[in-house]
Amino acid sequence: MIPAPTAPSVAAVVRLSRRAMADGREIIYYDEPGAAPRVAVDRRELGPRAQAGDLRFDALTGDWVSIAGHRSDRTFLPPADACPLCPTGRGSVPSEVPESDYDVVVFENRFPSFATRTDASQGALGQAAAADMVDRAELHLHRPAAGRCEVVAFTSDHEANIASLPPQRVRTVIEAWAHRTSELSTRAEVEHVFCFENRGVEIGVTLHHPHGQIYAYPDLPARTLGMLTRARQHHESTGRVLGADLLAIERTTGTRMVLEGEHWSAYVPFAARWPVEVHLVPHRDVPDLAALTAAERDELAHIYPELLGRLDRYYPAVAGQPIRMPYIAAWHQAPVRTGREVSRLHLQVFSVLRSPDRLKYLAGSESGAGAWVNDVAPESIARRLREVGS
Amino acid sequence: MIPAPTAPSVAAVVRLSRRAMADGREIIYYDEPGAAPRVAVDRRELGPRAQAGDLRFDALTGDWVSIAGHRSDRTFLPPADACPLCPTGRGSVPSEVPESDYDVVVFENRFPSFATRTDASQGALGQAAAADMVDRAELHLHRPAAGRCEVVAFTSDHEANIASLPPQRVRTVIEAWAHRTSELSTRAEVEHVFCFENRGVEIGVTLHHPHGQIYAYPDLPARTLGMLTRARQHHESTGRVLGADLLAIERTTGTRMVLEGEHWSAYVPFAARWPVEVHLVPHRDVPDLAALTAAERDELAHIYPELLGRLDRYYPAVAGQPIRMPYIAAWHQAPVRTGREVSRLHLQVFSVLRSPDRLKYLAGSESGAGAWVNDVAPESIARRLREVGS
Repeated sequence: MIPAPTAPSVAAVVRLSRRAMADGREIIYYDEPGAAPRVAVDRRELGPRAQAGDLRFDALTGDWVSIAGHRSDRTFLPPADACPLCPTGRGSVPSEVPESDYDVVVFENRFPSFATRTDASQGALGQAAAADMVDRAELHLHRPAAGRCEVVAFTSDHEANIASLPPQRVRTVIEAWAHRTSELSTRAEVEHVFCFENRGVEIGVTLHHPHGQIYAYPDLPARTLGMLTRARQHHESTGRVLGADLLAIERTTGTRMVLEGEHWSAYVPFAARWPVEVHLVPHRDVPDLAALTAAERDELAHIYPELLGRLDRYYPAVAGQPIRMPYIAAWHQAPVRTGREVSRLHLQVFSVLRSPDRLKYLAGSESGAGAWVNDVAPESIARRLREVGS
Repeated sequence: MIPAPTAPSVAAVVRLSRRAMADGREIIYYDEPGAAPRVAVDRRELGPRAQAGDLRFDALTGDWVSIAGHRSDRTFLPPADACPLCPTGRGSVPSEVPESDYDVVVFENRFPSFATRTDASQGALGQAAAADMVDRAELHLHRPAAGRCEVVAFTSDHEANIASLPPQRVRTVIEAWAHRTSELSTRAEVEHVFCFENRGVEIGVTLHHPHGQIYAYPDLPARTLGMLTRARQHHESTGRVLGADLLAIERTTGTRMVLEGEHWSAYVPFAARWPVEVHLVPHRDVPDLAALTAAERDELAHIYPELLGRLDRYYPAVAGQPIRMPYIAAWHQAPVRTGREVSRLHLQVFSVLRSPDRLKYLAGSESGAGAWVNDVAPESIARRLREVGS
């Protein structure tokens, strides 16, 4: 049994500075040696913090859905000089980050899908919904959408991206992810910590500054629960860890392998459901980012930008312009309190761009029935990802 | 126990004409009284029919994914004068429908995600994939993506839509759905029949002619399986049908009701996951479309276009132009061979349009973790759908 992490695990090379934002949200700077002290004060006039919405049980499917009405007002593609993730002073208005520079910074999302409850109200729902709360039918279970949503700015450089960052900075991002995973895992309401990056307007990104997000969920999301169920079945029938067996098959077969390091390998999964999809997995059975050794983090700081860089070379440039791949990078970690001995950390990176000018849409079969159809053979994806190595 | 349908159920008012297309695919006309005989011959030179792709088991999640490489060449937004669903003679080239007119027509999809296997090859995969088929690791289960994909043209009028059709024509569409459900359910390889419509370029629709599709799957899609599991749990613990209990709660509560007929009601589900979502359900426990009575079909022929028409009035017109709602209309039926006594037919209609000019994207939380966040309260959706009734 691998225990849940209980202590922060920031490496000595990163300095952590905790501050409060104007509305009480927490902001944490992760800085490399030589950075200035982080002491700036957030002097903006901000309204009250968003309350947790309503987490409702979908009796038809067994899923929990967060109803978060306050999020429909969130910031949508602001002009570059009003970027809320750039340091304050670079734009026309104070940003979410009071400092004039930073290396990596994490702060609580102003428009959270899951939030700490600070009062006993029914959250941020409209009056119609609140009135309906007398309807406590046994099938209509609901509870506060407790948890926490954080933003992770990877760099203060608005024009950068993970693939263009030096490994030292990527290493600091990894430290931040690991620390957040450790700390959020200690919160009573949190059952799962999910670090991810959405990139590209094609998948709805509303802020272009290079950043990711962390959702600390109060339950196991559907995919997490599904993977846990499968991993447990495999462990019960074989005594082995499913993720480790899948990696062994891919390393032996070879046709879907993308890259192999000393501590990490990347491959396209046998049943890839997206037109571009690749998994990056550690060679060791590791439950989450916090459990990675220093050597594993060091190699990841090189391999992760290499892998994402290949996505931007995946489709040949058109008229001299590279095709910047939109993607979702999803770090699947072990749940906080259960199944840690059978769950295995892995990164799933995937894209909806099925050709330089066409998207895969999730229409009737995928969104309606949940049945996936992929027009691209996984072996072809892997071959292309091998070709475009740097 | 409600048995699976075994006999076609076309009402006497609809005439059925079966024909073969140039490449051997089946085409079936469903015509109202007075229509001309359907005897035209498809004289096009078509290449060989697409073979079934490869259905692969995703060992991480337990889902099956169809790998259908041949579909990447499918028709993409053809000019209106080359519409493959208009009758032949209206456009510049012969269409998929040899007749010069039709009422409702169903034919096998030229670019199917699931297809009948007519040889023993590994299907339409590329050479790289075929070479990899020696890799028959126990975790990498795969089999032919057997099944059938059909196109349902609702009318020969390229500019029409369901909401604009007369009830008689909608009734004929319902007859076609019911007949296809009956007939496809008798096929040995088919476990589930899914009738749906994708409408709007926002969800990737590649043909504007008003049409739907039918997927006859060789397994239970993920959402179908999830709903079946929940329905069985509810039946075991209460002895009742889950869908009937949910309808009873909504009719009593009222805040999420949209419309009530004699045989059908529409409501917004308690845990709606889309910014616009509504379910249309029969009042009686009915496993699938084929099991509907004539009276239920008659009322549906009026209620269905009324409900879809409300979607086009959901957002106020901008500069005098109505906002045509993109949507997915998904008919969830009981599986063919299992759980028919606990499964209940229902239509799920939903849209990604979260405001007149913004889409909901399925990004990290939804597509990565499977955790849904809805920015709109279900009670607000219902209120608006009540306001825009005709």
